[in-house]
Amino acid sequence: MKDFSRLCIHTFTTRPWGIEDCIMNYSRAGIRGITIWRNLLERKNVIPVKTLLDNSGMKVVSLCRGGFFPSVTKDRREAAINDNLQAIEQAHAVGAPVIVLVCGSDSNQSLEKSREQIAEGITRILPFARSAGIKLAIEPLHPMYAGDRSAVNTMKQANDLAALINSESVGVVVDVYHLWWDPSLHEEIIRCGDQGRLFAFHVSDWNVPATDLLNDRGLMGDGCINIPLILSWVEDAGFTGFIEVEVFSDKYWKTDQNAYLEKIKYAYLNFT
Amino acid sequence: MKDFSRLCIHTFTTRPWGIEDCIMNYSRAGIRGITIWRNLLERKNVIPVKTLLDNSGMKVVSLCRGGFFPSVTKDRREAAINDNLQAIEQAHAVGAPVIVLVCGSDSNQSLEKSREQIAEGITRILPFARSAGIKLAIEPLHPMYAGDRSAVNTMKQANDLAALINSESVGVVVDVYHLWWDPSLHEEIIRCGDQGRLFAFHVSDWNVPATDLLNDRGLMGDGCINIPLILSWVEDAGFTGFIEVEVFSDKYWKTDQNAYLEKIKYAYLNFT
Repeated sequence: MKDFSRLCIHTFTTRPWGIEDCIMNYSRAGIRGITIWRNLLERKNVIPVKTLLDNSGMKVVSLCRGGFFPSVTKDRREAAINDNLQAIEQAHAVGAPVIVLVCGSDSNQSLEKSREQIAEGITRILPFARSAGIKLAIEPLHPMYAGDRSAVNTMKQANDLAALINSESVGVVVDVYHLWWDPSLHEEIIRCGDQGRLFAFHVSDWNVPATDLLNDRGLMGDGCINIPLILSWVEDAGFTGFIEVEVFSDKYWKTDQNAYLEKIKYAYLNFT
Repeated sequence: MKDFSRLCIHTFTTRPWGIEDCIMNYSRAGIRGITIWRNLLERKNVIPVKTLLDNSGMKVVSLCRGGFFPSVTKDRREAAINDNLQAIEQAHAVGAPVIVLVCGSDSNQSLEKSREQIAEGITRILPFARSAGIKLAIEPLHPMYAGDRSAVNTMKQANDLAALINSESVGVVVDVYHLWWDPSLHEEIIRCGDQGRLFAFHVSDWNVPATDLLNDRGLMGDGCINIPLILSWVEDAGFTGFIEVEVFSDKYWKTDQNAYLEKIKYAYLNFT
């Protein structure tokens, strides 16, 4: 049975498209969920975007992305706070209930120091997020990004960080691409769910061999991740939200994006 | 004080060279330790290699590499056993006391299944290794290699596997490139040392940004790994062996390899 009611696409998955293309083409393809990447909102008036979203019946699942808190330089840490406050405004304006946090890492200091600054940064923006009714979702990133993108690299670290901050507005994103290899993933997903902190679920696949650190993600089924198994863990943990397709792929970006949407739908049906 | 008594170079670090070049040039540069990669022994009579090693006063630290045990196909698993038995013979012939195991992973089955087959494989070859007086060192590989190179991706997993096999001849390699990001690294290095299983220590660096999954390793000091800190942990764990330089780098392979040896020596002095 073709049920796309929980399917969400990240706008970065169809990178060649602008925000209007994404909204109209997703909607036409019968997709109801969209996670908006902020690059598409740069120098944009958000009001017509919101109108288009509403008129198309699209539900905004998350805004991607806030975070990037750590820096050896105080000025840059302050700039990151300001950028996150802007993200909260944007999330509010487009109706996104959640901001995904790619936490950041500065290779000029230790991972421990970066993690401290991440906790400080989240704590700083939290009151503003709460007053805007926006939740913050910590996304643990694959260890290959520890040097420059995130010092939070496992589900355990993300759970520990969320527990430290201890707010109903701060939770965790489970992304199979980043986490599939981790032997403690199952128990940490259950722990996350038990604490009511499993805010989002992202899918793509790990190509074998992987040829690029950033833009060689596979479509679900292309690679070696047991997505149905991890989905079952997430659902056992009580998650009933959207299943978000986030594929960075030079290969797929070169193809016709409307045909690609159909491929995504087919892949989605195959694992759900 | 220039002390290179614990410096060892992996032959793959100077990839353009054959085995004779490696031995003669390392020796001339005042380097006493060599870890031999098996690609340099293919279709070679090992006896003259051993003679050259002895005449040059070189100490063979390890043979790289055995392993690659898992496969969905029984024939391939048997072929891997035979290949590992050949590695044991080669190690014995060149006087290498240790074989580094890159354990393998077959993306057509679960990581758990691959790990079972790794344990089986090591157990199968262990009696032959023991009778040849060769130790086997499990090398946990970075999680970005979980799909095709190793289903053992953290120090904890390697320690657990070695504890399961529980032989004085089976231990673990600490390689900073694979492990630097892991928040449990310190405690697991201490555990490894306490159990007398810390068999080898490999160094290189993590470039920021990293541009390639395989051949963009940095020379020590190029990247973001706190190598002196991890070295201090390894030494606190009782390790007194060679410090092995294992850098896969398209960038450095394009340069004059004798000049590169001097760069390596300089980098070595800077962190030891």
